Amino acid sequence: MPERTKPAVAVLGLGRMGTPIASAFLDAGYRVTVWNRSAAKADPLVERGAVRAAGAAEAVAVAPLVITPLLDHDAVRRTLGPAATALPRRTVVNLANSTPDQARELAAWVTGHGADYLDGAMMALPETVATKAAFFLYSGSEQAFTTYQDELDVMASAHYFGADPGSAEIHDLALLGTGYAALTGFLHAAALLASLGTAPDVFAPLAARWLHGMADFLPELAREAGSAAYADGVSTVDLNRTAVDNLILVSRANGVAADVHQPLKDLLDRRSADGHGQDSFSSVFELLIPRDTSGAH
Amino acid sequence: MPERTKPAVAVLGLGRMGTPIASAFLDAGYRVTVWNRSAAKADPLVERGAVRAAGAAEAVAVAPLVITPLLDHDAVRRTLGPAATALPRRTVVNLANSTPDQARELAAWVTGHGADYLDGAMMALPETVATKAAFFLYSGSEQAFTTYQDELDVMASAHYFGADPGSAEIHDLALLGTGYAALTGFLHAAALLASLGTAPDVFAPLAARWLHGMADFLPELAREAGSAAYADGVSTVDLNRTAVDNLILVSRANGVAADVHQPLKDLLDRRSADGHGQDSFSSVFELLIPRDTSGAH
Repeated sequence: MPERTKPAVAVLGLGRMGTPIASAFLDAGYRVTVWNRSAAKADPLVERGAVRAAGAAEAVAVAPLVITPLLDHDAVRRTLGPAATALPRRTVVNLANSTPDQARELAAWVTGHGADYLDGAMMALPETVATKAAFFLYSGSEQAFTTYQDELDVMASAHYFGADPGSAEIHDLALLGTGYAALTGFLHAAALLASLGTAPDVFAPLAARWLHGMADFLPELAREAGSAAYADGVSTVDLNRTAVDNLILVSRANGVAADVHQPLKDLLDRRSADGHGQDSFSSVFELLIPRDTSGAH
Repeated sequence: MPERTKPAVAVLGLGRMGTPIASAFLDAGYRVTVWNRSAAKADPLVERGAVRAAGAAEAVAVAPLVITPLLDHDAVRRTLGPAATALPRRTVVNLANSTPDQARELAAWVTGHGADYLDGAMMALPETVATKAAFFLYSGSEQAFTTYQDELDVMASAHYFGADPGSAEIHDLALLGTGYAALTGFLHAAALLASLGTAPDVFAPLAARWLHGMADFLPELAREAGSAAYADGVSTVDLNRTAVDNLILVSRANGVAADVHQPLKDLLDRRSADGHGQDSFSSVFELLIPRDTSGAH
């Protein structure tokens, strides 16, 4: 099978993420055109073979695949605005931080100018780009995702979440939310233990070990939630309700606010009051999914 | 160096955790005496060489080390009560689920009967006993912990948290709380994505990957919190505040309650309002640790 011809790639924005991304494409043997508001940022990449564009329009003109790892939505609009006439038949992969609505707005603008649009969210630190630790989420044009799968994989493992351009950003927020909740729970626990003389750095390795276990447990939790099969879970609403009650009582007894755990306590209390105390812990999912209030089933 | 003589071990309670614990001691070449309320539970262990005691007192009488992996505090009181006269010079390692106050009460009762007391909390599933995945937390008699370190290691890696017999149970609650927060955040995220057509089991592997990353980040977070050095963190209060705001807005727009993230939003808002918006995310720790209201510094 003949090797597919590598498309030229334009990288607009050489910040914390743009630089390692452009670098990864150079490493992978691509012809890379780069542009950055402050041109000097491009120097090390140009030394390694990248082509410096005088403006975003010039970069877009030479590359069918345009990647924008810019800071935010406004930066993308400022950058692509002057390049609008060069957009027809291009594919824009926008990696800037955006809200779902901003992603949808930009998708409409880009496609309105004759280009294809794929929105991306980068679950990665700059140093993990092009390593197994990084993964990027995408939504928008499925054709763009399919056509440029090889190029997306140069940056990070690529996951597609449907035609709604806002979907990748929503998945990004969902992942961030999962992480925030864990970190907040850890900081609360560390505060409780600090009040009793255990330093956070003594607690951290144990908490990390426990959290790795929780991460491994997510597929099982998801299986229960996805199938609404709550009869044979690892532990019940009532069992965990007792533990959360104790955690809140012990926190307060030691002068530590327990607000962090109040939402879970409320969920467990409601499940128990509804007669679901013997269901699996995961069944609080039933209180989180939106109720169908339309009367339809 | 001559091998230390292995002490005889009594295991009282052969439930989900007691059975694999007694089994682990048999595997490790210990003389093991077992007792269980329903005697038939002991049969497989007796076949493998364990000695069956007719009552808890008989088991305590023959073993300097008494381990109680019973269901809860009441079961321990019921079991040890009739064995009180056999307790002098024994060491009780209580692995039952207890509140910190129950652990302290039992410690007083046990030491009042001339025995040493170590309270333990098992961070393990039955199938992980005596594997690297299990770790047990201990507090109470430091001498008991030191004397029986080898025996504790038979069950799981052992961590000691001080003389207060309630401390192990508080650390247990702190770990559970860290995990609960993560699981609740995941279930909220799964509910949000389910409302958009992504099934929980599609989201779970990505969320697990992200959560493993968060687990690896805990030592850094603990270093910042422990040293109150919030200037050079990975990301700021204000940056994450924007993301949490977006998460709450997107949740509501999709009919999903965002109560789960309200406590973190409140913490971030307070830090920002206090002029700490450019501090590291970890600095919300300052709002969680108890205020010194005594006037002393």
